[in-house]
Amino acid sequence: MKKFQSLENFSNKSSLSLIKKPSVEIKERVRYSETDRMGLAHNKNYLEWFEIGRTEFCRHQNIPYSEIEARGYYLVVVEAYCKYRKPLGYDDEFNIKVILDQLTPKKAVFKYELLKDSKIIASGYTVHIVTNSKTEVCSLPADIIEKIKAIKP
Amino acid sequence: MKKFQSLENFSNKSSLSLIKKPSVEIKERVRYSETDRMGLAHNKNYLEWFEIGRTEFCRHQNIPYSEIEARGYYLVVVEAYCKYRKPLGYDDEFNIKVILDQLTPKKAVFKYELLKDSKIIASGYTVHIVTNSKTEVCSLPADIIEKIKAIKP
Amino acid sequence: MKKFQSLENFSNKSSLSLIKKPSVEIKERVRYSETDRMGLAHNKNYLEWFEIGRTEFCRHQNIPYSEIEARGYYLVVVEAYCKYRKPLGYDDEFNIKVILDQLTPKKAVFKYELLKDSKIIASGYTVHIVTNSKTEVCSLPADIIEKIKAIKP
Amino acid sequence: MKKFQSLENFSNKSSLSLIKKPSVEIKERVRYSETDRMGLAHNKNYLEWFEIGRTEFCRHQNIPYSEIEARGYYLVVVEAYCKYRKPLGYDDEFNIKVILDQLTPKKAVFKYELLKDSKIIASGYTVHIVTNSKTEVCSLPADIIEKIKAIKP
Repeated sequence: MKKFQSLENFSNKSSLSLIKKPSVEIKERVRYSETDRMGLAHNKNYLEWFEIGRTEFCRHQNIPYSEIEARGYYLVVVEAYCKYRKPLGYDDEFNIKVILDQLTPKKAVFKYELLKDSKIIASGYTVHIVTNSKTEVCSLPADIIEKIKAIKP
Repeated sequence: MKKFQSLENFSNKSSLSLIKKPSVEIKERVRYSETDRMGLAHNKNYLEWFEIGRTEFCRHQNIPYSEIEARGYYLVVVEAYCKYRKPLGYDDEFNIKVILDQLTPKKAVFKYELLKDSKIIASGYTVHIVTNSKTEVCSLPADIIEKIKAIKP
Repeated sequence: MKKFQSLENFSNKSSLSLIKKPSVEIKERVRYSETDRMGLAHNKNYLEWFEIGRTEFCRHQNIPYSEIEARGYYLVVVEAYCKYRKPLGYDDEFNIKVILDQLTPKKAVFKYELLKDSKIIASGYTVHIVTNSKTEVCSLPADIIEKIKAIKP
Repeated sequence: MKKFQSLENFSNKSSLSLIKKPSVEIKERVRYSETDRMGLAHNKNYLEWFEIGRTEFCRHQNIPYSEIEARGYYLVVVEAYCKYRKPLGYDDEFNIKVILDQLTPKKAVFKYELLKDSKIIASGYTVHIVTNSKTEVCSLPADIIEKIKAIKP
């Protein structure tokens, strides 16, 4: 799984990633309702946390996702993957790190890491296609691409 | 709370409810993801179960809720109440009973009971106003009201 | 406290609440996954927001809810009510205000307001009984009650 | 992506799967609360549907998952993948097909397909490790393995 290997690389910060990618890191907490009877955060919430990360990523890039949709473009999820490494419990505070891995006018790939006390709790990726409001495939305009791709301090 | 008292009445089946109201009863099961770390179904799911009940109620009345929305009418929830009487656990099978308590062109009140082994697990109600797709208040047309109000065998 | 008074009023409480009650106010945002096909936040999320509010209320009172549970006490929801006054959409930022309305060793009542741009979006309450981990009714010890009831600046 | 390729094989039914694997297929409907403001089922629900599928798979194998947990064994999700092929909307009826792809005392792999009108809506897999109630790795006993692996008519 090549994609996931490259995620590994960035995760371990070991690496030769010469090209810096746009990213953001935000804090979240596990809600009581997000736990299940094992006492831990349920697996489906991770996809929701990835999405919160994307929302904050877009805001950080000065192009709120609501604005992208208002202009008629939707980044529809066509693939999602998560590797659950360590458990999270109620009220645990953790970080969501989002990296834009690829972006073309028709496709985006985001990678994610959840971190707690600097340890990787989970990692994953989502693949998106660009559609209009009728879920017909289309292309992101250049100005939106430029904003999403900008490297921020 | 007058409303809840009248709910109590119907709950205890004691009563003199001379006027039969349209109702439906369906089966559901508690999903793993619906439990929390107490080991029981989380309180927010009950509102989702009430909603599943409304969906099946409308279908039973030969006017699927998706059809009501397709015609431009929305039954927006403006109040929701639930009394949690007994806990539900993972994989528990229970019944959702939905009763149309009131219906005018501008407002609907549904009452609910969740039952397990003929015992009342929870009861509640929701109040709805009728809006168009822009959430402007409007009135349900006569043919929809007639269908929703019809007493079915 | 005008807003809170209006909550009191709608709740059927009499009025001039001379006694200040412990409270907390936090910020939240509507997640994409919390919207439904009407384009607005789904009604069940409000109960989850009330719960996030309780978590932050307990932390603010220096007795994190996880600590209360670690000591063997559970504040089980037995009633929940919400009045939905104005809609919330994706990415809307709003405040959750939580007020401890009543607390005895065996019972707690919390009241809530959701506010956006100083306007009340929703209001509601939850009633809780105190149980042990086997959901048997029990009493909160004095030191926990004292902490929960303390008026904080 | 070896795993996904093998998933592809089973998805396309092209293949020479000489070894029949235990499986089950159940019906579900998209709940209103499972849609988002795009008007379609939100991506996180698919993991919940996979889980409902596992619950019904275990029941079908005469070893309800609640019984597995009651005996002290947990099938903890360590990886989840979903490919979203076609959208699902409110009230859409679809089938969840679950196949036990691998089972050893310490690990299980399930594959899934969501089908609507015989068309594949989504496919995916989950990888599980076996733990005790303290999330320590352990091994499933032989009798449980035998039941889970049994080919049913």
